[in-house]
Order: sequence, then C-alpha cells, then structure tokens
Amino acid sequence: MTNEILGIAASSGIAIAKAFRLENPELTVEKTAVTDTNAEAERFEQALAQSKSELEVIKEHARKELGEDKAEIFAAHLLVLSDPELINPIKDKITSEQVNAEFALNEVATMFVHMFESMDNEYMKERAADIRDVTKRVLAHLLGVTIANPSMISEEVVIIAEDLTPSDTAQLNRKYVKGFTTDIGGRTSHSAIMARSMEIPAVVGTKTVTADIKNGALVIVDGLDGKVIVNPTEDIVKAYEDKKAAYEAQKAEWAKLVNEKTVSADNYHVELAANIGTPEDVKGVLENGGEGVGLYRTEFLYMGRDTLPTEEEQFTAYKTVLERMEGKPVVVRTLDIGGDKELPYLDLPKEMNPFLGFRAIRLCLEMQDMFRTQLRALLRASVHGNLKIMFPMIATLDEFRQAKAILMEEKEKLQAEGVAVSDNIEVGMMVEIPSSAVMADLFAKEVDFFSIGTNDLIQYTLAADRMNERVSYLYQPYNPAILRLIKNVIDAAHKEGKWAGMCGEMAGDEIAIPILLGLGLDEFSMSATSILKARSQIRHLSKVEIEKYVDQVLSMPTTEEVVAFVKQTFHIG
Amino acid sequence: MTNEILGIAASSGIAIAKAFRLENPELTVEKTAVTDTNAEAERFEQALAQSKSELEVIKEHARKELGEDKAEIFAAHLLVLSDPELINPIKDKITSEQVNAEFALNEVATMFVHMFESMDNEYMKERAADIRDVTKRVLAHLLGVTIANPSMISEEVVIIAEDLTPSDTAQLNRKYVKGFTTDIGGRTSHSAIMARSMEIPAVVGTKTVTADIKNGALVIVDGLDGKVIVNPTEDIVKAYEDKKAAYEAQKAEWAKLVNEKTVSADNYHVELAANIGTPEDVKGVLENGGEGVGLYRTEFLYMGRDTLPTEEEQFTAYKTVLERMEGKPVVVRTLDIGGDKELPYLDLPKEMNPFLGFRAIRLCLEMQDMFRTQLRALLRASVHGNLKIMFPMIATLDEFRQAKAILMEEKEKLQAEGVAVSDNIEVGMMVEIPSSAVMADLFAKEVDFFSIGTNDLIQYTLAADRMNERVSYLYQPYNPAILRLIKNVIDAAHKEGKWAGMCGEMAGDEIAIPILLGLGLDEFSMSATSILKARSQIRHLSKVEIEKYVDQVLSMPTTEEVVAFVKQTFHIG
Repeated sequence: MTNEILGIAASSGIAIAKAFRLENPELTVEKTAVTDTNAEAERFEQALAQSKSELEVIKEHARKELGEDKAEIFAAHLLVLSDPELINPIKDKITSEQVNAEFALNEVATMFVHMFESMDNEYMKERAADIRDVTKRVLAHLLGVTIANPSMISEEVVIIAEDLTPSDTAQLNRKYVKGFTTDIGGRTSHSAIMARSMEIPAVVGTKTVTADIKNGALVIVDGLDGKVIVNPTEDIVKAYEDKKAAYEAQKAEWAKLVNEKTVSADNYHVELAANIGTPEDVKGVLENGGEGVGLYRTEFLYMGRDTLPTEEEQFTAYKTVLERMEGKPVVVRTLDIGGDKELPYLDLPKEMNPFLGFRAIRLCLEMQDMFRTQLRALLRASVHGNLKIMFPMIATLDEFRQAKAILMEEKEKLQAEGVAVSDNIEVGMMVEIPSSAVMADLFAKEVDFFSIGTNDLIQYTLAADRMNERVSYLYQPYNPAILRLIKNVIDAAHKEGKWAGMCGEMAGDEIAIPILLGLGLDEFSMSATSILKARSQIRHLSKVEIEKYVDQVLSMPTTEEVVAFVKQTFHIG
Repeated sequence: MTNEILGIAASSGIAIAKAFRLENPELTVEKTAVTDTNAEAERFEQALAQSKSELEVIKEHARKELGEDKAEIFAAHLLVLSDPELINPIKDKITSEQVNAEFALNEVATMFVHMFESMDNEYMKERAADIRDVTKRVLAHLLGVTIANPSMISEEVVIIAEDLTPSDTAQLNRKYVKGFTTDIGGRTSHSAIMARSMEIPAVVGTKTVTADIKNGALVIVDGLDGKVIVNPTEDIVKAYEDKKAAYEAQKAEWAKLVNEKTVSADNYHVELAANIGTPEDVKGVLENGGEGVGLYRTEFLYMGRDTLPTEEEQFTAYKTVLERMEGKPVVVRTLDIGGDKELPYLDLPKEMNPFLGFRAIRLCLEMQDMFRTQLRALLRASVHGNLKIMFPMIATLDEFRQAKAILMEEKEKLQAEGVAVSDNIEVGMMVEIPSSAVMADLFAKEVDFFSIGTNDLIQYTLAADRMNERVSYLYQPYNPAILRLIKNVIDAAHKEGKWAGMCGEMAGDEIAIPILLGLGLDEFSMSATSILKARSQIRHLSKVEIEKYVDQVLSMPTTEEVVAFVKQTFHIG
C-alpha cells in the first residue's frame, strides 16, 4: 500500500528507486575479565590499525568525489584515532581493570562523547559525532562485525537509514545512490550538508523511514517538498517523473544564467557570491556562476594537522583562490575558531577551554602571533586578485579597531620590507552579534563593508542554541527581530556609502531573498549550488514593488505571519 | 613598609584590623593500593557522615545569621553528599580498582567538576563549585587534616584568603570579621554576593593578597575603592578612619530616607524595589525602605529538596510575601530554572540536559503541570496583596501569548471552583533576550509591564558568557548597544501606557542610575542594601537635565566613553 512519510527537505531534487536499507549492526558490548592484558591491548592496537587504513581509503575517495574540505572530516577522524588523550585511557583501563578492549573503548569513548555533547559549542558537538563514528568503526573490528559499506552499492537505489554518518556519506557513489532519507537530522546536520554538496536529493528527520520501509520497496524521495512515498502507484510514479522532469528542466533553465548578471525585474543589480572552504571549491563557484566569494572560511587550513599552517602555506592557498577567481571579489574571513580540541597543537592554557565565547577575533586578539601570520599571508596574496578581509565575532568597536590596527601594522612592516601589498584591500566585519547590529551606524563609519552572519546572529538574538533540539523552534530566520536588525545594518552601511552582504544560510533561502532584496542587501553569499536558483528568483522580483511591503513585514508580530505573507505575496511553495 | 594592592570593590565600607590568613591546607592525594576494599569503603562512608554532620551545623548557623536562601547553599551541599550519581562511582572505584578512598573521591569528583564547568550554564558552574567545596571537606576528613574553621575567630580581623568558599563565608561572625580580601573572584562571585548581604567590606580579585600579607599585619580593606593597604603608616590609618567615619555618616544620612519617596531633584518619582529569594528577605526590604519587590525569584522554593513544592507550599510562601509587603507591589517571576541536576526529582528525559537554552519559560511551557501548579498558587495568593506576575526568558510573542493563555485558563478554572482571585493582577515579562528588546513595540501592546533583566540581556547582546573570565571584558552594562535596547524597551512601554522596570545588577549601579533615570525607567529593583544609597543619589539628580544628554550618550561608540562622560557629568567616583 502506498504510504507518504513527511520529513525535512534537505537537498533538492526527486529520486525514484528501490530502497536500500543501510543497517547499523547492533554492536553490543559486554564486560569480560581478561587475564592477558598485553594480548588484549595488542588486539586493540590491531583494530585501531585496521580502522586507520580503512579511513585512509575513505578519505581518498572523499577527496576525489567530494573535494578537499569534505575529506578533512576523515583527516579529523584519523587524528582522533591517534589522540593519546583518547587512546591512552583506553589502554590504561584494559591493563588496570583487566577488562576487554570493547568494554574499555566503549566506556572511555562514551565519557568523551557526553563531555563534548554537553558543551555549548558547535565544534565540540561535531567532535562528539566524530568520536561516535570512529568508535563504531573500531568496535566493529574488535567484534569482528562488518559495518555497512555503502561504497559497494552497484545498482540504482534510495538509501534508507536511521542516520548517515559522515563516513557513510563520503562513500556514496553518485552514480548509483539516487537519493536518501533518514529518521533523524535536520537541514544543517552533517548528512544534509553533504547531500547538498553532492546534489543528491534527500529528506531527513522523517522519524519513521527505517520502521516503515522494507528493503527493495519502490521509494520516491521528494527533496523539494520533504516527502517520502513508499510503494507508489503507477499514477504517482508518473506524476513524480513529471515533477522530476520539470525540476530538471528548471535546472537546465537556471544553468543558462551562469554567465548572466544578477538583476531584478526592475533592473537592480545585486551580487551573488559563494561560501567556500578551500581553493578546490572555486571550481564549483565558477561553474555555478558565482560573481565572487562572499565568505572564504580559513579554518580548514588550520584543521586536521599537527602544527599551525605557515605563512607560506597560507599565502599559497589565498593566492590560489584569488587567482582562480580572476579579479572577482574574494572576502576572506580571518580565523574563526575556538577551543583547544580542534587545534590541539595550539597548547592553549587550561582556562582557555572552548566555552561559548572565547573564539574567533577574541582569541586572535590574544594570540597575536598566529593572527599576524594569517594577516601577513593575506596581505602578500592581495596583489594577486581582489581581496577583502573581514573579522568574525566583532562585538565592540574596540575589537574592530584593534584588529584593524594590527592589520595596518603588518601592512606597514611588509611595505618596509619591500613586499608588494595592494592598496585597495577593503576591511570589513561580520555582523553576527546583536550588539554590532544595534551599533551598526557607528561601525559603518569605520568599516568598508558588513557581512551579516545570520547563523550566529539568530542564535544570539533569540538566545537559542540551534544545535539543541529542545529550543530549535526558536531558531527563526524570519523573526521580525532579525529582519529589523538586518535592516538596521543595511541602512547604516548605505548611509555611510558602504556595502552590506550576508553569508549565513539565510542569503540563499527563497523566502528570505525577496525580503533581503527589498531591504537593499548588496551581496548574497551562499552555497555555490544555490546561486543559479537565487539568480532566477531575483530576475522575477521587482525591488521597488517589494519596498512597499517592507514596513508592513517588519511590524508583523510573529515569524509565522512573515512566512505566510511572503509565501503568498511572492508565490513561493 | 606600606603596600597598596588593587582589587575589585565587592562590598562597600572600610575595615581596619589585623590580617587573619585563612589557609587552605594542602590536600595532597596519592594513589595507593588497598586490599580490604570493604574497610576502605567503610572509611569513606565515615568521612561522608562526618562531613554531613558538620554541614548541618554550618547550615543552621547560616540560616540564623544569613537567612533562608543562603542556608540553601548548604542544603545543596548535603544533597551532593547524598547523590548516588556521585557517591556510587566512588565506591565502585574503590572496589573495582582496589584503590584508596582519597584517590577514588578525587578522580570522580574532578571528572564531575570538569563536566559541570564546561557547561555554559550558570547553575551548572555553581554546581562545580559546590562539588569542589564538598569534596575538600570529605577529603580533609579522610586525610585527618583540619580545614580552617572561620567560625572560631574571636578577635577583630580582616580575613586574607585565596578565595572564600560558600561554607567559609557562612561561618564568618560579623562581630569579629571586619572585612575580607581574596586573590580571586569578581563582583558577582559567591563570596562577593555573600559579603554584600552580610554588609562586610570586601575587596576581591587582588591576585596577590595571600602572597603579600603576613598573618597579624595591619590591613585596611577599602571596599569603596577596591584597595587593600598593608602596614599603613599612622597618617594613612588616620585618613582611612576619617573615610570610614564619613562613609558611616553617609550611611546614617541614607538611613533617614527609609520612609521617604524616591523623587529626583526636579520632583520626578520613580519606584525603588528590591530583589528577593524567600519570604524571610522581606524584612530587609522594609528595613531598607523598599517601595516594593521588583523581582521575587521563586527558584528557591524548588531547590534543595526531593520533590516539587506543592501548590499549598507555594501558596503559603507567596501569601506571606504579599502580606508582609502590605499592599506594596510584588513582582513574582515564574520558575526560571533549567536542567535536571538542580531539580533531580523532575525526572527529565536525557535529551533535556541543561544546555544553554532549555530553561525558564521554555521548560515551563513544556512541563505544564508544574507551571500550572505555580500559577494556581500565585492566583490564589493574589487576594492577599498587590501581585504582579512576570514570565522569564520570553523570546517571541508566541511564548508570551501561550504563557498568558495558560494563566488565564487557570484563573477561570479557579473562579469556576469558587476560589477568590484578584482581578487586578498585572501580567508582564522579563526583557532579557535581544529579540524581545528589539520587538518591544509589539510586546508592549500585549503585556502590562516590562522588567529588563540586564544580566542576561548583556550576555546575549554581546555574546559573551560573563562566567568565562576570558571574555568577561565583554560583559559591558554601559555598552551603548545595551543602553539603546533599554531605551527602546522603555519608550515602547510608555507609548502604550505601560511601565518599565529593571531587575538586573545594573538597576542599583551608581553609574547606570543617572542614565536610566534620563531614559525614563519607572522602577529600579536591586539588592535591598542598595536602595537607600540609590534613593539618595536620585534625590540629587535632575531628570530634565539628564534628558539633554541622552542622545549624546547613545551615540558614543564605546563603553569607556560612556563611563567617563557619566562620571564626569554626575561627579561619580
């Protein structure tokens, strides 16, 4: 019988294929006493070694299929397996408590997972997921159980799973895996992000797909509307084939816009840029018609390694991006990281543990050597393209002034050394903390541009950790409070003749785009794969028309009213 | 030689007396193997029992000298010592690892302390301090070491310590302990709050007093200016005796204002109210001339016990406060708590761990039985005085509407049951989340009043956890962003004919008071002991004069400029 399951649309497109259940084998851990603890420790070492070589293979696969930044996830996994803070306590436990390796591993790993999960910090929470993923792999080797190997799939399927770990996702072969659907997860979960970057249709957070779908059943994954249809009738299949064709035709239509400017129906130009993590990502930006890079996250340069990247390494990366972008603007965000666990080599003092708060510019202003190295690399690269620099997590004008003063010092030093530095580097800031949105009029006098980071701005403005499911209902991009703050930032920029961009998820969102256009946003930076759709949408919108509605939208009391109004007025969804 | 040490003024007044060093004995824990683990577990039990009876004595002392809410700290400590989640792992460790009790205790406690400290949640961090304090006590018993017993002091002294634990502070006898000074801590640390409530002059965060001051040295603690003078000359002693006399004369002058209204020099009336935690605190409110209770924190009713307080228990507490306040306004904040650790009896599901976010109204809207019980108790008590109810952590209008609807439902139910309920209960909300400050115009149409909670508002607006030392520089009450949000809230309230109060630390702060008066704040709620000083200050300020400066202050770019301007203009400090 046909069954329709609702979930969260995580990656656009329609997939129609047979269900392939990706089962997580039950890894039951029992505690047993061992007498030969040396042999047991040796058994543990072997499982570690097997897991490492498996991960190396997966990492290479990911590098080829998904790009450098996705492969970094597995570099991180490999680091976990070499981390003495995790490994030594396990070996100690085997020896001192005379227990089996499975038990020792499970106990220690669970403790770390709970610890990291309890931290209110996105990086740390991802770390918990990493440890869980890696532990499962090692445990499977210890137990002699084969864990599912999605890279072996050789016919067209839709994957059904409770959740997909990063290592599962990285093994998916786009040729055969037409779509996937999971019980848990949200639009910003690892697997959802991966699905979008691989352009595999996906519906997540369905709660019941693993309970409701048998292996081999015909399944439709509707990643446009967040629906999964099990055992569809022929009529339904036909309807979805049409929908799929229409979507693909639309995509083909969008593809024609690759070399077009982004102009509204009333001929107002905005810039559509992309968020990137590594030089490799530039390819996707250009293929999707990006007019610039609106956010280059430099964190990947620092992660998955044992030492800080040198000035030279950074220079090469920045130069590569600037050159490949051929004079188009590239906004580089200086290091936005916090905590010692991601960058173990930093040797941060104990009291600098990665709590909410001590990160990004706050950390860089204190660890100035590291910060100056990054700035020097950027300044040197500036002559190879159109570089703009922005500082993350600016809360007060003092911080911006300090950061900019350090940049200027390094510029003067380089020039004194005879090194060429561009004189046209714009220096701006992220607006992602409520105080800077409120004070935008005064910031605008001193910055060259703003880039609104909505992910954090929403979290702080509504005081709700969006990684915490219990309060995720408060993660409201269209809350009028957010829209008012955005308006304040854009108006303040324009009053001083500066420009304002946005590099959060919201910039590529079809409900947000009309509002942002009406508010006068100058630059929209999003996933490369969203650019063409956004360009097409903007070409059908009239800025002057939307401006008439802006005051009305900003006086709406609730998010629900905003969404309903925008959907109706601009015929969305 | 005379030596002057700078610190943070934590409690007003001047103390001149001999130094008494409160030493923390070095509690060194070594790991030793034990064969008779039963005997070792028994030794641990004995140390637990001794610690418990000691704590009972300290708790009673605190109850008599400091009041019910301070005594609750020790009720919490006693609960820690009975918590199977802490105690059982220690016993298990003794048995399974065959180690000594000191080592097992230290290992398990340290793990919990790290776990709680890493949570971005004030309650949880205090929990870490509790565990550390309690662990020290049990450890001392195990090691046969006597820990300092400040209750034995029998001559006039100034206490010198690295830090004071809550249990230290609770043992201080005001007759002999004239002041104290510590190496660590800030204005909002436990010991500082205790010092203010005991009215003992204190300077904290000096970093060096324990290194610099010998036992018996003559010491001046200047809790007005945050200075400690060691081995002062006779002239200096004379000067500080004069300063002390002047301060006491000023206090006597303030005392004359007990029955006066709070009016500015240009005859504008504002209300000075107090923040309380228990019915016992009402005495201090009235003695200090409080015109109302601006914040009754109802959390204490729920803490340090094994079950939820019944409707009847709550009714009695609320009725007592309302009656004792004799018709003066009493603003009760509904339960502002989050997490399962403080209220272990709530049996919250695992995923509801106390992360930043799921607390206060968010939790109450989900745990409606608990919420409705509190509301019924409040509604029934309403006929015994002048009750106003406010909801904490309101981020969206939806939440306020839901909470108010539940209140109205309970009111109707009670009336249907024939229970008398006042028809004049004002229903308001805390403004402590940036979104509600930004949206105050729309909230003002639906609430009866606002109470601005600056402690949280500052934290969220600047995205800085004020308990985290590394970012505490961002905890800036006078940041113009905060002042602008406050203005927005007050203006919005007045436009709809509603009133706006403030119940954060800031309301009693001498630098904030002129600004808040100028912005039109209607009610200032603070520690009872700050009321008379604030009343005296306001009597010397002209609201009309200050209004001329308001725009200027709100356009200042930095906190430093605001502070300098206010100090100079209003002759503070």
